Amino acid sequence: MQSYQEMSKEELLQEKAGLEEAYRKYANSGLKLDMSRGKPSAEQLDLSMGMMDVLNSDSDLSCEDGTDCRNYGVLDGIQEAKVLLGDMIECHPDNIIIFGNSSLNIMFDTISRSMTHGVMGSTPWCKLDRVKFLCPVPGYDRHFSMTEYFGIEMINVPMLPTGPDMDMVEDLASRDEAIKGIWCVPKYSNPQGITYSDETVRRFARLRPAAKDFRIYWDNAYGVHHLYDIDQDNLVEILAECKRAGNPDMVYKFCSTSKISFPGSGVAAIAASANNLVEIKKQMQMATIGHDKVNQLRHVRFFKDIYGLTEHMRKHAAILRPKFELILNTFDRELKGRDIGTWIAPKGGYFIAFEALEGCAKAIVAKAKKAGVTMTPAGAPYPYGKDPKDSTIRIAPTYPTLEDLEIATDVLVLCVKLVSIEKILEGK
Amino acid sequence: MQSYQEMSKEELLQEKAGLEEAYRKYANSGLKLDMSRGKPSAEQLDLSMGMMDVLNSDSDLSCEDGTDCRNYGVLDGIQEAKVLLGDMIECHPDNIIIFGNSSLNIMFDTISRSMTHGVMGSTPWCKLDRVKFLCPVPGYDRHFSMTEYFGIEMINVPMLPTGPDMDMVEDLASRDEAIKGIWCVPKYSNPQGITYSDETVRRFARLRPAAKDFRIYWDNAYGVHHLYDIDQDNLVEILAECKRAGNPDMVYKFCSTSKISFPGSGVAAIAASANNLVEIKKQMQMATIGHDKVNQLRHVRFFKDIYGLTEHMRKHAAILRPKFELILNTFDRELKGRDIGTWIAPKGGYFIAFEALEGCAKAIVAKAKKAGVTMTPAGAPYPYGKDPKDSTIRIAPTYPTLEDLEIATDVLVLCVKLVSIEKILEGK
Repeated sequence: MQSYQEMSKEELLQEKAGLEEAYRKYANSGLKLDMSRGKPSAEQLDLSMGMMDVLNSDSDLSCEDGTDCRNYGVLDGIQEAKVLLGDMIECHPDNIIIFGNSSLNIMFDTISRSMTHGVMGSTPWCKLDRVKFLCPVPGYDRHFSMTEYFGIEMINVPMLPTGPDMDMVEDLASRDEAIKGIWCVPKYSNPQGITYSDETVRRFARLRPAAKDFRIYWDNAYGVHHLYDIDQDNLVEILAECKRAGNPDMVYKFCSTSKISFPGSGVAAIAASANNLVEIKKQMQMATIGHDKVNQLRHVRFFKDIYGLTEHMRKHAAILRPKFELILNTFDRELKGRDIGTWIAPKGGYFIAFEALEGCAKAIVAKAKKAGVTMTPAGAPYPYGKDPKDSTIRIAPTYPTLEDLEIATDVLVLCVKLVSIEKILEGK
Repeated sequence: MQSYQEMSKEELLQEKAGLEEAYRKYANSGLKLDMSRGKPSAEQLDLSMGMMDVLNSDSDLSCEDGTDCRNYGVLDGIQEAKVLLGDMIECHPDNIIIFGNSSLNIMFDTISRSMTHGVMGSTPWCKLDRVKFLCPVPGYDRHFSMTEYFGIEMINVPMLPTGPDMDMVEDLASRDEAIKGIWCVPKYSNPQGITYSDETVRRFARLRPAAKDFRIYWDNAYGVHHLYDIDQDNLVEILAECKRAGNPDMVYKFCSTSKISFPGSGVAAIAASANNLVEIKKQMQMATIGHDKVNQLRHVRFFKDIYGLTEHMRKHAAILRPKFELILNTFDRELKGRDIGTWIAPKGGYFIAFEALEGCAKAIVAKAKKAGVTMTPAGAPYPYGKDPKDSTIRIAPTYPTLEDLEIATDVLVLCVKLVSIEKILEGK
């Protein structure tokens, strides 16, 4: 396909006229499509409806050690749930605490605790003049808004195809004691779908941060969210790697079943070293008598074990694969060779990131919105909502039906082309 | 019955010998009974087993406004859950936010937020030299341990039969800007079973605290936990009363279904003014995408409405009433007129408090423990675990079977008598 960059002004104007006509047709057809959030579709949720049947009024709601899951107690989760989630995130059950329904909430509590109580004996962050976090970008908007809420300064670190720029991470973390953490979505990252390379994970584990209370916030949100059965990304397990590197306490690993069973009614967990878990439990003991054990039991009885969970994830993949492929095929067909943006074909996760020409993302998202297609706001994947190049567009293909997605992608592609042509014309 | 205080040394020694023999029999019989925590019994939990049937794989998990409860979203709870809990705590649904499974967790988040972000624009408490809370005593141990965890200084306020000593509350709150809150269990209080009088609630609503960010932490844990159907305590609704008194923002009201459905798998909520809710939602928005809506729906479909919930509470009462009456009858029979302690017969809640002779509580609890009966540690119902008079014993009658409770109560009464006699003999 011919590069727009190499077209003459006349060729571009002609191309633009054709695209505008197509755009107008969509704009006048009263579309209302949403590709903004990483929500599972109703079809995916249907996969877990059997979970509503595994417990009934005749069930014995005791867990394997005899605990009555209906009553108070068991602060850190029932053993069989720890085993299931341990298998899921490749950690020993003893290194796991099961929480409520939201891993985001665990992250929030973790930051909040560090603010008021410090980290394993360090000065509470609220007593410090400055606290900073490294933020690989583009990244997950809710990480950044949470960090901002606590008045923590955010430093952008560019994402490379191998993960965060580790030269920069090593350099900054080793020099600045105010840097207390880094946000990571290490597998099928939000929004680019990048999995950190083995080297990246090993370099993470070998960090020598200036701050003793520096922690890696390892949000393993898409650990089992593959699109393919064989062609999967592999991620080196960070807890074990940190232990091997003599840094056992340096990482918190977060996960949940939000995009496995039901978002909002799943089970979330943290994995960390024994030292970290002691501190976390001290906080938990003050905050709750225990999380929802019946729901933990419901998950274990439904999935049974990691094989059951893996089979379940294959069903999710079967629904998601065509959606991802639809978008990627459309991009290949319509945008490849045009020199107006780049993208990565992810092998899992919930997003595709389109990297537009500099200064075009906002305009593209706005133009799509005008035609009735809602995208994640441009800038959202960056701290403070500010994309320095105004170029990243996050695409969430999971929620719409395949039919809606086809239209939404067509509209998006039209908007990318139109805004890019305008941008190129400015320079001619 | 003859007062021990009036008995001669010889009479006391003779009485003691008989009691010791009875005690030895129990001590040698290998008892293992627990009256330490306010847990529902298995029989009570069975009342809610039907909740496991109301949702199944054929159910429509949409709530009344059409929201798919299985997916992300709805930060503050589904409307029908707000209506049900609103009816339960006599508040408008618009003043309610539904949380996860634990009201304790909401309280923790509330204090934590005040530490890091202040209260409606006030200085974050972590930036202040001193923060103090008023603590009506005896009270709920978990309130106090949470307060201690955040380094907040606790000031004891004596409980009267009408609630906290309001002269003292008014005086302290109006004079000291460091006093930011007061813990209240206003109905069937933990552990005495006292319901605040109308005058007490009205005086609360009319407080003029020195601190603008002073809040009443109104833990309405036992709002519908009556033992009798007609002979119930009534509590003036605090939110409405605060509004009438021109103090609409001064109170946070907490509740949950922990002792209605399943502890740990229930639904908790906060009720507060619109201004407070705005601030709470700001924090929530950072911490979670939403709580467990499926469980909210499960509760609504099971209880249907406040009538259903009231009928359900009658069933709890039918199980609990004989347990409370057993203890109270035993106390009446064995301790009345002995002048070795006082107690209140509560009309609801989860506890009975026995007020022993000064300096006797620890010894009584230890003696019961030796005979195989575990009570709540003496001192627990006081800040820092320190009962200044060493006299309060918290009795939790709900968990043991009636048979076990009978034995445990006999042992407790024996221990009260023995320790009291020793105490009296010391003075002779």
